[in-house]
Amino acid sequence: MKELKPKSLFLKEDSLGIVTDLYQLTMAIGYFEHSMQDNATFELFVRNLPKNRSYLITAGLEQALHYLTHIRFSAENIQFLSQLPIFEHVNHKFFEYLENFKFSGSVYAMPEGTIVFADEPILRVTAPIIESQIVETYLLSIINFQTSIATKASRIVYAAKGHEVIDFGTRRAHGPQAGVIAARASFIGGCRGTSNVFATHELGIPALGTIAHSWVMAFEDELTSFYKFHETFPDNTILLIDTYNTLSGAKQAAKIGKKLKGVRLDSGDLLNLSKEVRKILDAKGLQHVEIIASGDLNEDHIDDLLKHNAPIDSFGVGTEMVTSKDAPALGGVYKLVEQEHNGKSIPKMKFSEDKIAYPCKKQVFRTLDSNDNFVGDIIGLEGENIRGLPLLIPVIRNGKMCYNLPTIHDIQRTASDNLAHLPESFKRLKDAETYPVTKSQKLEEKRQEAENIIRNINIFH
Amino acid sequence: MKELKPKSLFLKEDSLGIVTDLYQLTMAIGYFEHSMQDNATFELFVRNLPKNRSYLITAGLEQALHYLTHIRFSAENIQFLSQLPIFEHVNHKFFEYLENFKFSGSVYAMPEGTIVFADEPILRVTAPIIESQIVETYLLSIINFQTSIATKASRIVYAAKGHEVIDFGTRRAHGPQAGVIAARASFIGGCRGTSNVFATHELGIPALGTIAHSWVMAFEDELTSFYKFHETFPDNTILLIDTYNTLSGAKQAAKIGKKLKGVRLDSGDLLNLSKEVRKILDAKGLQHVEIIASGDLNEDHIDDLLKHNAPIDSFGVGTEMVTSKDAPALGGVYKLVEQEHNGKSIPKMKFSEDKIAYPCKKQVFRTLDSNDNFVGDIIGLEGENIRGLPLLIPVIRNGKMCYNLPTIHDIQRTASDNLAHLPESFKRLKDAETYPVTKSQKLEEKRQEAENIIRNINIFH
Repeated sequence: MKELKPKSLFLKEDSLGIVTDLYQLTMAIGYFEHSMQDNATFELFVRNLPKNRSYLITAGLEQALHYLTHIRFSAENIQFLSQLPIFEHVNHKFFEYLENFKFSGSVYAMPEGTIVFADEPILRVTAPIIESQIVETYLLSIINFQTSIATKASRIVYAAKGHEVIDFGTRRAHGPQAGVIAARASFIGGCRGTSNVFATHELGIPALGTIAHSWVMAFEDELTSFYKFHETFPDNTILLIDTYNTLSGAKQAAKIGKKLKGVRLDSGDLLNLSKEVRKILDAKGLQHVEIIASGDLNEDHIDDLLKHNAPIDSFGVGTEMVTSKDAPALGGVYKLVEQEHNGKSIPKMKFSEDKIAYPCKKQVFRTLDSNDNFVGDIIGLEGENIRGLPLLIPVIRNGKMCYNLPTIHDIQRTASDNLAHLPESFKRLKDAETYPVTKSQKLEEKRQEAENIIRNINIFH
Repeated sequence: MKELKPKSLFLKEDSLGIVTDLYQLTMAIGYFEHSMQDNATFELFVRNLPKNRSYLITAGLEQALHYLTHIRFSAENIQFLSQLPIFEHVNHKFFEYLENFKFSGSVYAMPEGTIVFADEPILRVTAPIIESQIVETYLLSIINFQTSIATKASRIVYAAKGHEVIDFGTRRAHGPQAGVIAARASFIGGCRGTSNVFATHELGIPALGTIAHSWVMAFEDELTSFYKFHETFPDNTILLIDTYNTLSGAKQAAKIGKKLKGVRLDSGDLLNLSKEVRKILDAKGLQHVEIIASGDLNEDHIDDLLKHNAPIDSFGVGTEMVTSKDAPALGGVYKLVEQEHNGKSIPKMKFSEDKIAYPCKKQVFRTLDSNDNFVGDIIGLEGENIRGLPLLIPVIRNGKMCYNLPTIHDIQRTASDNLAHLPESFKRLKDAETYPVTKSQKLEEKRQEAENIIRNINIFH
């Protein structure tokens, strides 16, 4: 028997076409066989904000753009598809079509770092229906996740009130790529940096970290481990002091003296321990030594620590942030809203039970007051004359990027600017008010009109 | 200004060395400079089972083995590391060492699909401390996530009582790679297949799926969309019937006649709707047509539907499964337990606050009754003479795989065999009993001895 080799499950640029749900391809075959080549417009939005969230911070557009400008079907992938049992009777012309498949459509999107609310399109794709259909799965998976994490990170950074927050989460992220993506998204949400070195390599954001318990345990005793670390990193001596006993560890760390840069607490009652540790350090004249806290932290815990004056200078946050643990899935959807046919635009919508959607290409108009603070949003029709800042901008035109990518630092700034202009009542951690989002009268009319037509054609009792 | 190109954030095989936390490399530099080349043993285990979980199903070993046999530092990566501000004064000899870095150690692990409980090592790594330290982050991220999803999937499959469960979750997974990994892990947990085509391509598991609302909306009316789909896939006509109204949709779908294969319900009150739809189909002589349900399903919802005799044949499950939504993070840890020094083995442990761990290389012995049912586990010392099936087996010896990889179908079978031998009381969805796991007396003695020594050396009040 042939020996199997272990698989990495890494994504590959030349296989992006098949990183999708089977039904997208099934439908693509159907559209192809019925010669449906007209443009269809889909919008990506979130129907309801998740638990504990009063806003979202958009993130993931850059990876969406990478995907849309690189999606192809390799010869090997096409061969594989043609041999799937469900596709065995499919006309070979479809597979020939895939050989030259590229995304040729146009995309509008909110820049990353924009604050967005329920029902507001984050991204709008207009392309021949086969193309706009196939790209659904990947776009959702990248934008749902990054938006979810950027939002969670922003709440944690808000709770930290100017103290640094650092991403320590890779080990608990949903696989190794999720750790890298979470590092990016949490930086957008306001983190100072990440422990993930590959993320630093790819994104140029600060790599941060200290030592683990294993370092301390690897030496005969704690004090030796501290001295040895100081020998190697005299200017970056940040010591983990809770391996055996936090207060004892603080006393040992203090023996490093003036050159000690920081200590990290990773367990126990962080409020009392941080106060005791501060006293121990201060008594030795080490007022400059920073206290870093970590260990299952989230926004509520950090808020509580700081309200009780915990003398903590920065927070390493992992699990709770990179999994958005209290709301671990963002339910973004991607819905057909308009179709071109014989030169006409036909509004599209569904109304299955509780899932009513609005048809037509839309734009989001944000009303600002004289200080540029956010007052409310109006979701209107694309091209409608509404006062306010239109949030969706063109990013791809006819398959080509028409958007100057911001740097990751620019995006972080966009997010912090957006947050600065969102009034306090809409962003406090608990019991935040609901930010006012309305639909324009024209959009409501379009919806009523479309719904009447579609109901008449389709519902029989 | 130079235009930026969008980044994929894909992992790359030649960059695996830097897919780690910064502090692993910081510590590696420290170990290197202090000439610490002796073997250190780390164990990966879960301290507490997450909410609603009474067991875990191990998964992710194959990707861990891929990682351990491929980890390298490319010349470009080394250049990058040497220029990080924190490493600027590091002796260049360390970076030369990285040029030839490989994992040269030995690994014991539980085969994928094994049922495991709190405190039981899933994986044990023995290697020169630099190597065993650096690999921590990646090993945790791949095994935490896959184990979490395989376990969640097994609960959902259990609730489905023999009805098929299909993974539809990629769009809500934590990024596109997480979708692929979740497809693998949920297959191990008992799913019949996945909607993720790339996962099918990589793993050879069934690709499954139907149509989306957009297909129905893309035609003038629902009935036309059904006929057109049937034209293209006459033998695979599974129709989504809730775009406008489920019962009306069922009547339209029934017009396809005998060749109709199935209908899918994606919203509303699935219990009542499935019963009504069944009646509509049966009244037309379409008893053979399957009903597939989807839409935010989880084990409790499925259990409830089936307890009330919902005539549902299979379940498409997404968000809740691929994010393990009720317990979205598995807190696996990787702890130093033993170190070699001058030919002696030194037990290692920490006892910071609530996080006490057991030292020494361990083995897990599973006691079986005469029907091979699981009776209880004993965590003992490696090599201890304890009756029971030892669960950790060698998978890598001196850097080389010494394990015949099972196929994904073998692994799925291992999981279902394990589940079949776990008595009902330990796996019911709610209020499951705690499976008995004890520590051997020798392990308890070793722990007491090591703790006494380490406390004496390290704790000063």
